[in-house]
Amino acid sequence: MINISVLGSTGSIGTQTLSVVDEFKDSINVVGLAAGANISLLGKQIKKYHPKAVSVKSQKDARFLKTHWGEDGNCAVATLPQVQKVIIATPGLFGIKPTLAAIKAKKTIALATKEVLVAAGDLVMSEAKKHKVDIVPVDSEHSAIFQCLFGRKAEEVKRIILTASGGPFRGMKPKQLKNLTVGQALKHPNWKMGNKITIDSATLMNKGFEIIEAMWLFGIPLSKITVVVHPQSVIHSAVEFIDGSIIAQVAPSDMRLPIQYALFYPGRRRANNFKKFSFSDYQTLTFEEPDSKTFRCLDLARKAILKGKTFPAVLTAANDIAVEAFLSEKLPFNRIPDVIESVLQTHKGVKYSSLAEILAVDTWARNLAGEFVVKFGRRL
Amino acid sequence: MINISVLGSTGSIGTQTLSVVDEFKDSINVVGLAAGANISLLGKQIKKYHPKAVSVKSQKDARFLKTHWGEDGNCAVATLPQVQKVIIATPGLFGIKPTLAAIKAKKTIALATKEVLVAAGDLVMSEAKKHKVDIVPVDSEHSAIFQCLFGRKAEEVKRIILTASGGPFRGMKPKQLKNLTVGQALKHPNWKMGNKITIDSATLMNKGFEIIEAMWLFGIPLSKITVVVHPQSVIHSAVEFIDGSIIAQVAPSDMRLPIQYALFYPGRRRANNFKKFSFSDYQTLTFEEPDSKTFRCLDLARKAILKGKTFPAVLTAANDIAVEAFLSEKLPFNRIPDVIESVLQTHKGVKYSSLAEILAVDTWARNLAGEFVVKFGRRL
Repeated sequence: MINISVLGSTGSIGTQTLSVVDEFKDSINVVGLAAGANISLLGKQIKKYHPKAVSVKSQKDARFLKTHWGEDGNCAVATLPQVQKVIIATPGLFGIKPTLAAIKAKKTIALATKEVLVAAGDLVMSEAKKHKVDIVPVDSEHSAIFQCLFGRKAEEVKRIILTASGGPFRGMKPKQLKNLTVGQALKHPNWKMGNKITIDSATLMNKGFEIIEAMWLFGIPLSKITVVVHPQSVIHSAVEFIDGSIIAQVAPSDMRLPIQYALFYPGRRRANNFKKFSFSDYQTLTFEEPDSKTFRCLDLARKAILKGKTFPAVLTAANDIAVEAFLSEKLPFNRIPDVIESVLQTHKGVKYSSLAEILAVDTWARNLAGEFVVKFGRRL
Repeated sequence: MINISVLGSTGSIGTQTLSVVDEFKDSINVVGLAAGANISLLGKQIKKYHPKAVSVKSQKDARFLKTHWGEDGNCAVATLPQVQKVIIATPGLFGIKPTLAAIKAKKTIALATKEVLVAAGDLVMSEAKKHKVDIVPVDSEHSAIFQCLFGRKAEEVKRIILTASGGPFRGMKPKQLKNLTVGQALKHPNWKMGNKITIDSATLMNKGFEIIEAMWLFGIPLSKITVVVHPQSVIHSAVEFIDGSIIAQVAPSDMRLPIQYALFYPGRRRANNFKKFSFSDYQTLTFEEPDSKTFRCLDLARKAILKGKTFPAVLTAANDIAVEAFLSEKLPFNRIPDVIESVLQTHKGVKYSSLAEILAVDTWARNLAGEFVVKFGRRL
């Protein structure tokens, strides 16, 4: 029996994690749950899974439900003595503190929240190394790479090949990005995901974040990570080894697959609830270079990680604000990279050694991004 | 330093093996060489590699070169005390005896000769199991599968997906196969190989043999092996695991890659002499079901392995004669499966326990196939 805590249990990854748990009731036991403000869904989850500990976002909800609350509550759920694996699917920087707490408590981490590594990769990975804790990625690309690397040594890796769908605006030129609506940007060709990540996928910032995550997860330098646009999202990513051989992972576009892999890693378990994959269902797979002139966020991410320090934290903070502004129709789609670039250019980089420093930079970057949103949004 | 013997050193796989050795002079040492009748090339190889033992096909050549000869000579080269790995690239059934001898002497086998497993899979694999010897495949498809399975348990495998180029006549209907010339059949779209295997590729018999090899190599039943036609030959094969995830191997079409993998298995070594692979060089990869109505050899192979016993040995013997007859313009292309099917239908199957029984059936099948060649070739 594997005892797990699910942080972010009412979100997209959280609910899909619990649906995988439902398929393996005899093998997985939900011991802890943490959610934000969706108390009605959390209430149902508590009734169904009878967790030993629960945490919510606000003190008020916690009083009503008699649970833990806030970051400390998340940490309590993540460090329950009987828990072996913690699924981190809490949005944004809220994921960092419980991740660090779970690592210190020697829990295996199943990591879905991108910001944990993008903003605090250095901190999280050095703690994981120190406590000899596995960080198993939950998103489809890094799970693919993780699977391709199975049993292999780091020195055998020549290059990581991250595949990108290219998003709904693939093939467009810079001019065409000007008047795109929120509705158009939310129509992702292959994946049904939350609004924020769907926009990140349309700007290719999502792929930029994934480059940074891959660097930390697999200890690979930026120069060894390439992106190829593969609109069918059938090959989820690949690894080229030093002998020229490439190992790729292929699967239906279903997040439950990487979730299940993370839950049972290092083993695999039979799954019958997924659409069976057949190569002949996908008669044509295509590949092309990413258009980083039109989709400028990819290079902004590369620049941020090259500068290191708190630059990636600034990248994700500014991107958050810019995407929020686009979703609430305060900023045109093509101005998202302008906001991010302006904040990055203003930033002076802090060599952080604590979460507090990252959080301070985050607040600074969000405020400044808000100012640039006003500036670049004026034309609307 | 890895000490190797190369059996079939003057053939296509043998010479490519030596070209890989040339790239890794500090790591690989050629201790034994065995060849057929290409004495002039063998002489050059002896001068270059200074092997401790050499074997040739005929006693006459052996006298002239002062070497071993025949099957016993091959076995002597394969069992040299200082040898760790033996590359079996001797054509046809001649590969079986030295393979068995090398297994008994606890040498790792790098296996290129298809007939060794197609005709004598039972015998070879039970010996390998008994002596705890690794059989590492050298052809591109099985090397791909072998790489995809790296570190995984047999019970995690749901299905093996063998990719097939489809050969030069892909898309043709049965009627169109009637008047094909030898020249047309020898034009393989992706690989430059020997004549025999190129014809086997055009009839899809090659893929039939590979199904049988995969069964033995990986201990997988026929029902778990599927074939998909993938004309670009970029994905060399794949493995679907029980959780729905597929791991595929991708590489340029260059036999030196699987040879190098077999030589250094379980490690990988840097190779700089191969064409660098880029997904964006292959803008489109396509997949389709094999047309087993037009290319009947695929099902003949499936039937032969289902019947078991000596049927696969008969399959390869009859195919040899039929392909020879086609190459010497004594049999039309579309009659190749007729010859094989007729011999299989006449055969009564022997449950073999020795190589001698296989060789007896082989002789019988070749003679009978010759008769059917005359019968089906009459219309020419």
